[in-house]
Amino acid sequence: VAFKPLSASAVRRLAGICAPERVVTDPALLVDYGHDESSEPACLPEALVKVLSAEEAAAVVCLAREERVPLTPRGLGTGLAGGSIPTQGGILVSTELMDQVLEVDAGNLMVRTQPGVRTVHLQAACAEHGLYYPVDPASLDDCSIGGNVATNAGGARAYKYGVTGDYVRGIEAVLADGSIIRYGGKLHKNVTGYDLNKLLVGSEGTLGIITEITFKLVPKPRHQIDVLVPFDRLAQGVELCLRVIRDSRLMPAVVEFIERGGIAACNRVLGTCLPFADAAVQVLIELEGNDRQQVLADCVLLGETAMELGAREPLVADNATDQERLWTARRSLAKTLKQVYPQVTAEDVVVPLSELPATVELVAGLQQKYGIPIVPFGHIGDGNIHVDICRTITDDGKWQRVRSAVINELVDFVLARGGQITAEHGVGSAKRHLMKRALGPAELKVMRNLKQALDPEGILNPGKVLPDD
Amino acid sequence: VAFKPLSASAVRRLAGICAPERVVTDPALLVDYGHDESSEPACLPEALVKVLSAEEAAAVVCLAREERVPLTPRGLGTGLAGGSIPTQGGILVSTELMDQVLEVDAGNLMVRTQPGVRTVHLQAACAEHGLYYPVDPASLDDCSIGGNVATNAGGARAYKYGVTGDYVRGIEAVLADGSIIRYGGKLHKNVTGYDLNKLLVGSEGTLGIITEITFKLVPKPRHQIDVLVPFDRLAQGVELCLRVIRDSRLMPAVVEFIERGGIAACNRVLGTCLPFADAAVQVLIELEGNDRQQVLADCVLLGETAMELGAREPLVADNATDQERLWTARRSLAKTLKQVYPQVTAEDVVVPLSELPATVELVAGLQQKYGIPIVPFGHIGDGNIHVDICRTITDDGKWQRVRSAVINELVDFVLARGGQITAEHGVGSAKRHLMKRALGPAELKVMRNLKQALDPEGILNPGKVLPDD
Repeated sequence: VAFKPLSASAVRRLAGICAPERVVTDPALLVDYGHDESSEPACLPEALVKVLSAEEAAAVVCLAREERVPLTPRGLGTGLAGGSIPTQGGILVSTELMDQVLEVDAGNLMVRTQPGVRTVHLQAACAEHGLYYPVDPASLDDCSIGGNVATNAGGARAYKYGVTGDYVRGIEAVLADGSIIRYGGKLHKNVTGYDLNKLLVGSEGTLGIITEITFKLVPKPRHQIDVLVPFDRLAQGVELCLRVIRDSRLMPAVVEFIERGGIAACNRVLGTCLPFADAAVQVLIELEGNDRQQVLADCVLLGETAMELGAREPLVADNATDQERLWTARRSLAKTLKQVYPQVTAEDVVVPLSELPATVELVAGLQQKYGIPIVPFGHIGDGNIHVDICRTITDDGKWQRVRSAVINELVDFVLARGGQITAEHGVGSAKRHLMKRALGPAELKVMRNLKQALDPEGILNPGKVLPDD
Repeated sequence: VAFKPLSASAVRRLAGICAPERVVTDPALLVDYGHDESSEPACLPEALVKVLSAEEAAAVVCLAREERVPLTPRGLGTGLAGGSIPTQGGILVSTELMDQVLEVDAGNLMVRTQPGVRTVHLQAACAEHGLYYPVDPASLDDCSIGGNVATNAGGARAYKYGVTGDYVRGIEAVLADGSIIRYGGKLHKNVTGYDLNKLLVGSEGTLGIITEITFKLVPKPRHQIDVLVPFDRLAQGVELCLRVIRDSRLMPAVVEFIERGGIAACNRVLGTCLPFADAAVQVLIELEGNDRQQVLADCVLLGETAMELGAREPLVADNATDQERLWTARRSLAKTLKQVYPQVTAEDVVVPLSELPATVELVAGLQQKYGIPIVPFGHIGDGNIHVDICRTITDDGKWQRVRSAVINELVDFVLARGGQITAEHGVGSAKRHLMKRALGPAELKVMRNLKQALDPEGILNPGKVLPDD
């Protein structure tokens, strides 16, 4: 598709669709909108449009089609794969002003929200009604719920509670033809035709602009207790996870791991003093329930199992202060690494649980082989490892070569072990070049057909998700 | 699309693709394959092919395309919407012989299975390894897991555990172009491109033939206790459900209801003696956990809450014998009604929880207005009401008019209250004529575009899901 530059008359039409103050073309004011939280190169839009409704978004889409200008939807720009960077210029449609929780419907165990609401605010609004939206991406203070839906965001609680898409019950979205679709609603189950919610979840703005979401809500157990277990090897942590689930029949809310390098960085930068700083790997497990004594008993059982597997005595964090200390460190790890190193590439591979230890061993080997810090951490329960590749090489060319080599070896290994290239960050622009290795021609053809069916002119978020032919 | 009759040479080619004994054309042997468990009219295929692999299924699809013959996939024929009836003749592709659980992978908390396995057998295979596949359609003894995926089957445990699609982690499927796609695998999270698993789940054989599935598994709590609560009104049951979840912060595995008419039918036909036969409505709630005393304490709390809401003293079933009695009755209700009446139309509407009482009141009104037995029962937690419309009118024309009138009033009401026409049975052929009322033109257009993108010649299961233009 050959796109055209955005004309001055088109900008005037945009100002007619939205109020002029919500149409921004001054490059100085666009700087913050040219990047996300990935290490993908920045790229400014020709115009930023802050829409207030599905109707406005639909009118902008129609204009983009008529003018043959690309359109990139954007939440709050916290993505880690470049998905919201307007790599081909054109119009950037921000939903940041659509920031209202429309209705917490406690009588139906549902919440209806605009897409620009921060995830943490959505959780708080639900909590006021005694209900729980449990999906918990590490960026929850900064990210938008619409972006969460567009990327099918995960987070620390995904093993027990699932990911964003598992809670979506209704969606309103603007499609590339300018139509507004509404599917589902306050319905716990619904098989009326093809599931358009599932189609849009995780489509990263390439199939539609999400303008309203209805989520189901669940009860939040009264007590959460965290157990921090120091191990010599990640394999022990994986085995602990399996024993807790299969033998103890517990459903942990969280099974995370972090390694010595990550612990050291947190302690140094945050000025914290995380326990077990000398342990090769720390495993963080959260158990929960309504009866505090029962949860404590479960934690004791967990601790005993951990020690049978060779752990030193675990730390139990059963009060808010201790828990906050552990969680702040864990949630801040990616940010912390960014403070230490000028550039960090955050990989997001996923493997079957049983392949986690070998994958982490591979990462250790890559660190040695290439002589750069590579910090693995993540979600044991989900088999999802974040591999943060930290830049210590000043020469641009050499850095790019080393970085590519690390990613290539990692990706080859993961794919050979039945894994995939992204578990929760998405493909965006960052992982597009890996898609032909990750998927076969038949699978890619289906995806291209889907894109073609919904956006034949390729207006919506071009240069994302699907690789070039 | 103009289809052609299946030629004798095509039948010979089918016998070359599969062994001749797996290609059936004798109408006498095809009778069982012309219907499902719905009241949709029977229709024989021109040939039945029992495939053993994705490769065979792909070759059959290619043949169907070349010969311009329609192809209908079929599991074990327990559907309730006509989805597997070959309404336009052609080839019926049965996966019944692909009946092996390929691998329970306890180290990855996953099971890999062929589609022809009965759901009950899949559950048993997982239980042998201490793991739980919790999705529990009432037909689990008879239905195939592939059919469950194709219809996104639900069941009694859907409020807590979700539906079939929530467990699908990998799919192998044959598409209309004869390609075999594989997406996902033993991966708890995966956002590598568009989610092809979610696309195929619930597509009712119109987008592909599912030939292998990988499901995630969970731990099964050690103790399940059922509480049967007699109420005067369903509204009390809905309120109980809300209080249990919001106030007591419990996640019930089951919140079902059945009304007086259904109870009477069960007692009469099954020769059982269900308790509270005189209650207007019975609510069945199952709580579970690893600590029996804790679960019992939760049940006591539940019982107290129920009595505050006006229930008589509930019955607690905490042993296998009592539980089996309750569950056999519940699971057999639909079958029981079929033994009493010559024909039963099973509707499957879903509404927001808060609209359940009004919907059931509407059903009572329809029963009075039209003078036929209409039995509502189902899943309070999901807002999903099955409305079994029982034939007592002998005259065919009059019965069809009454039946249509009941369905029309029900559907109008449900749609006006934010509900939908099917929660778990699917659209199939039975609810196709309702799709233009259930969805708007924009949503239907997207669905048509998806179908067109994946099956441009309309070979796969024609006459299902999507309405005529």
